[in-house]
Amino acid sequence: MLSLKAQYGLRAVVSLASHYGKGPLQAKEIATSQGVPVRYLELLLSQLRRARIVDATRGKNGGYILAKEPSSITVLDVVTAFEGRVIISPMRGEKEKEGNPGSLSFIWKEAEKRVVEYLGSLKISEVLELIQSNKEMYFI
Amino acid sequence: MLSLKAQYGLRAVVSLASHYGKGPLQAKEIATSQGVPVRYLELLLSQLRRARIVDATRGKNGGYILAKEPSSITVLDVVTAFEGRVIISPMRGEKEKEGNPGSLSFIWKEAEKRVVEYLGSLKISEVLELIQSNKEMYFI
Repeated sequence: MLSLKAQYGLRAVVSLASHYGKGPLQAKEIATSQGVPVRYLELLLSQLRRARIVDATRGKNGGYILAKEPSSITVLDVVTAFEGRVIISPMRGEKEKEGNPGSLSFIWKEAEKRVVEYLGSLKISEVLELIQSNKEMYFI
Repeated sequence: MLSLKAQYGLRAVVSLASHYGKGPLQAKEIATSQGVPVRYLELLLSQLRRARIVDATRGKNGGYILAKEPSSITVLDVVTAFEGRVIISPMRGEKEKEGNPGSLSFIWKEAEKRVVEYLGSLKISEVLELIQSNKEMYFI
């Protein structure tokens, strides 16, 4: 459901958040810290720019910064920049039959709603605080 | 995340629940109402038997029945019969690096927990009531 792209994209956003107010970060720096190729990271950053989560600055000290404060961006904003929509179960185009218990899609939609509510309530600033206050947490 | 197998398996359980107390249903009857091959449905039913959700009865009027009351089975019981575990994001074996924002796996685990809580709170008897009280719901 949550693609690797969305996960690496979120990590890039958290990296930028940890550097917020301290000038731009270069794609190379983020890529190195995440252990992913720079070109892959640039692809993620360009998707984040289109979603207006990230800005690019030019020039000698150019690079990437968050387009808004970390407390104004939610995890859902980042995930939807990559996936459009959080999908728990893609059961599409299914034929419904009379007397059949149906696709039960309302169950998956409700489950999806729970995930969306949670991701939409979680701010990037909170993710950063969680990581900083409890370093071992992200090794769980 | 939620496989087609789990979805068809759940539909089979809901079919059996709608027939609960009225004797066994044959795999063929369930398969026909769902528009899936009988052999596929038998595979699902054998997984549901191993999970002790479904029982098989032999003889001329043999077939399948629920092994417990519809109010004693949750959607989560059925899903885990097929998937072992509800997984939102399988990001495994990832190398963690010093100073890196981490895999952020706690976010996906928390999202997973929300889904598990919801599916675990939803009884098959409730699914059946929802369908029966609001027929158009499952066409949404």
